[in-house]
Amino acid sequence: MSYQLSELATRFDLELKGQAEAQIQAVASLQDAGAGDISFCVSRRHLSVLEKTRATAVILHPDLSGSFQGNMLLSENPHAAFAKIAQLLHSQRRNPPGIHETAIIHAEATVHDTASIAEYATIGKSAIISAGCDIGAGCYIGEGVVIDEDTVLKNNVTLHHATVVGRECKLHSGCVIGSDGFGHAHEGENWLPVPQLGRAVIGNRVRIGANSTIDRGALGDTFIGNGVKIDNHVHIGHNVTVGENTAMAAFVGIAGSTKIGKRCTFAGKVGVADNLVICDDAHFTGQSAVRTDIKEPGVYSSGVLLEESRNWLKNAMRFKQLNTLFKQVKDLSRNDSNK
Amino acid sequence: MSYQLSELATRFDLELKGQAEAQIQAVASLQDAGAGDISFCVSRRHLSVLEKTRATAVILHPDLSGSFQGNMLLSENPHAAFAKIAQLLHSQRRNPPGIHETAIIHAEATVHDTASIAEYATIGKSAIISAGCDIGAGCYIGEGVVIDEDTVLKNNVTLHHATVVGRECKLHSGCVIGSDGFGHAHEGENWLPVPQLGRAVIGNRVRIGANSTIDRGALGDTFIGNGVKIDNHVHIGHNVTVGENTAMAAFVGIAGSTKIGKRCTFAGKVGVADNLVICDDAHFTGQSAVRTDIKEPGVYSSGVLLEESRNWLKNAMRFKQLNTLFKQVKDLSRNDSNK
Amino acid sequence: MSYQLSELATRFDLELKGQAEAQIQAVASLQDAGAGDISFCVSRRHLSVLEKTRATAVILHPDLSGSFQGNMLLSENPHAAFAKIAQLLHSQRRNPPGIHETAIIHAEATVHDTASIAEYATIGKSAIISAGCDIGAGCYIGEGVVIDEDTVLKNNVTLHHATVVGRECKLHSGCVIGSDGFGHAHEGENWLPVPQLGRAVIGNRVRIGANSTIDRGALGDTFIGNGVKIDNHVHIGHNVTVGENTAMAAFVGIAGSTKIGKRCTFAGKVGVADNLVICDDAHFTGQSAVRTDIKEPGVYSSGVLLEESRNWLKNAMRFKQLNTLFKQVKDLSRNDSNK
Repeated sequence: MSYQLSELATRFDLELKGQAEAQIQAVASLQDAGAGDISFCVSRRHLSVLEKTRATAVILHPDLSGSFQGNMLLSENPHAAFAKIAQLLHSQRRNPPGIHETAIIHAEATVHDTASIAEYATIGKSAIISAGCDIGAGCYIGEGVVIDEDTVLKNNVTLHHATVVGRECKLHSGCVIGSDGFGHAHEGENWLPVPQLGRAVIGNRVRIGANSTIDRGALGDTFIGNGVKIDNHVHIGHNVTVGENTAMAAFVGIAGSTKIGKRCTFAGKVGVADNLVICDDAHFTGQSAVRTDIKEPGVYSSGVLLEESRNWLKNAMRFKQLNTLFKQVKDLSRNDSNK
Repeated sequence: MSYQLSELATRFDLELKGQAEAQIQAVASLQDAGAGDISFCVSRRHLSVLEKTRATAVILHPDLSGSFQGNMLLSENPHAAFAKIAQLLHSQRRNPPGIHETAIIHAEATVHDTASIAEYATIGKSAIISAGCDIGAGCYIGEGVVIDEDTVLKNNVTLHHATVVGRECKLHSGCVIGSDGFGHAHEGENWLPVPQLGRAVIGNRVRIGANSTIDRGALGDTFIGNGVKIDNHVHIGHNVTVGENTAMAAFVGIAGSTKIGKRCTFAGKVGVADNLVICDDAHFTGQSAVRTDIKEPGVYSSGVLLEESRNWLKNAMRFKQLNTLFKQVKDLSRNDSNK
Repeated sequence: MSYQLSELATRFDLELKGQAEAQIQAVASLQDAGAGDISFCVSRRHLSVLEKTRATAVILHPDLSGSFQGNMLLSENPHAAFAKIAQLLHSQRRNPPGIHETAIIHAEATVHDTASIAEYATIGKSAIISAGCDIGAGCYIGEGVVIDEDTVLKNNVTLHHATVVGRECKLHSGCVIGSDGFGHAHEGENWLPVPQLGRAVIGNRVRIGANSTIDRGALGDTFIGNGVKIDNHVHIGHNVTVGENTAMAAFVGIAGSTKIGKRCTFAGKVGVADNLVICDDAHFTGQSAVRTDIKEPGVYSSGVLLEESRNWLKNAMRFKQLNTLFKQVKDLSRNDSNK
């Protein structure tokens, strides 16, 4: 597929400078781009690369337009414009509509004519697969699962019984939705499993990464809001709520019954304890440990900075004496002010 | 299924107050409960919710019996009583006995008549699937695997050759048991793989969460004791031993050859180094890093408390100078006491 | 299979002391070894176990040869010699060549005669499976994937379209290679997915652990060098480069576009932020958080040492006042030197 630069400008409401009729076939990075490619540049830090690019056109912020001689599309948000143009030029790989002969569809399941069910998928009783859905090879869709329109499941995805998934979601390979929550009652030395009777309910436009897990609720549901983006190896415990447009990077773990607000971001490996409330617009840097409610929007961190192990060990040993040191300094200060 | 409140009281040896003939069909939370539901309350903190509940009956600690007017069952351990009643009322979803026509059973494998083998499962040579087992769709059971009675494997579970699983276990979707341990010998710049010749041996009543991994032993076995409960995304390295009734939350990682005692608890994301010995009844709070043997029962922690990133960074920079600070304060103290 | 001790000595160029004709059938640990077994000992710490071993022969460093009376093979690197002998004695379990009748091979895919394709595997259009490859049950190999000779995929492995895997690799169960990177552009409150158009390219002799994930590049490729060894639950983000013979333990996460050097080691749970450059021969202890470029070879750490929770909490509270304490001590020092 090829587009004139002017078509792209019109379609995405961008200002064009240069040859309106230039033909664009693909996106590429500034370094790798060649004839027919469109690239983007968001920062003055890349001006030296921008100068040398062989891209047919570049998407730029208006502030950078003076720094480039070639064809350009101007946008206040070049990254978003690039994402949209890339989506247009590189249509997502989809399996063709229809049910593969090896897929097993329960007699009481409903699969829309325009949906695609790939090799060795299993669709359980009363499940509903809506128009435009694309269910990959080896997926397991349990009893009573409902998947709304245009949602894609890659390979070996498991949706346990009664899970609800909204429209235009993308669930990556190996993720497991609606698994039992980790709920036990202590009796003497034994752990009694508490039946997990709720559901996992996923909103629209949700992205769930490879091998991530979202547990069903114990009583009541686990809920993932519209537009939430989840990376690989993320764990969402039972009865958690995640607000709209929140994003979580790899290895984020949210323990049971915690409520996360809207538009939050969690960098890699952040852990959040159970039964907390995190307000909207809270942001957490990598590996933070969240042990208390967060009531104010802002950026939060925990952890220790990396250093050479020998030095680190000396300092880390001292951490254990920190409270003692504070008392010592308090005494010194008292003595000092008495002199 | 419906039970009279008096039947539940008798069956689980609980004191009943109120209408013995009240009919109970389901469990529910205090908030969501309605007619026919039984709920529970463990803490005075929820008294305001307890007052308003529409549950037909509530399980309470005797100390709270004066705070409620409705039907009640009294228990010293209301959470455990609730777990048992929930198990009774909400029988676990099981696949029907029998072998699905698409399952592949090796001619030399043994599958009990009362076991269930679902779609696209593969059962290897000499494997033994005992009475009442329920093997989910897409599971792979390798050569010589033995699974004892009434154990459930959800979907896409992999048990590599020679793995042993006890009775009444529940292995959640995507977990991998008996994968090779991470063992290599260094030779020049290269890592030579050391063949992993042992097994993974899982006791009775063990729960393993979705996408968790338990590696086989290198020489000798990896061993998970009876009653151990493991959450999602947990990793158990080769030749680890986990003692009875120990519980591990999501993302816990235990490195090779470490021995974990009985009744330990590991909160989310705890990491334990290799070749350690952890005593019975040791408890670790979230994200702790365990680098040494633990010889005394107790509660252990590491890490740094969350704060606003700007403040955190100032303090974290100072951590690198901590040892220097201690020396400085020591000097000041010496001078102070000399004055 | 049985070998004379002298055959092993000759084959692996090791000095033999003792009975040249002793028959060796298997490897075992010093504790468990019996007649026909060969074991190894690398450290004086195990001399007491060495004395009591019933192994037919032991591989030892020449420095330890005086401490043992039995048959021995001497090596400067006993662990590597043991690895090689174990590989010889315990040939890896391989599926027989041929395509299982339930495997689905696209008409335009190429599978070498000596390759093995197991139950319910799916091989996509234009994929190439080379000589000696062993593709396990339930694997999904996408369109255009190329796998070089003698590479093994265990069960339920997913290789997304266009992934390249070198020769003699071993990919463990449940790993996902070539999944979409986590790339989004912010537009207002929404996250727009940026199409992930690159590939995942894996070198030769790479080991990837169970349930690990390696994302494809956004533009350009994600690249894993020859000889890299990756444990379970590892995440490699889009456009990351990992240099030759680097090793990563469980739960290591490398965020997007970071470049890792050769011969690095990452202990369990290390996290590395995005867009960093890590030099060759950098080593990181468990749970380290790497937030900056590493320019010098060495050993690096971060984190806090474990202690009893009560003490830890007192010290951890003080961490938040650390910067204030430094100022206070500075004042005290100034006053002190003025006296």
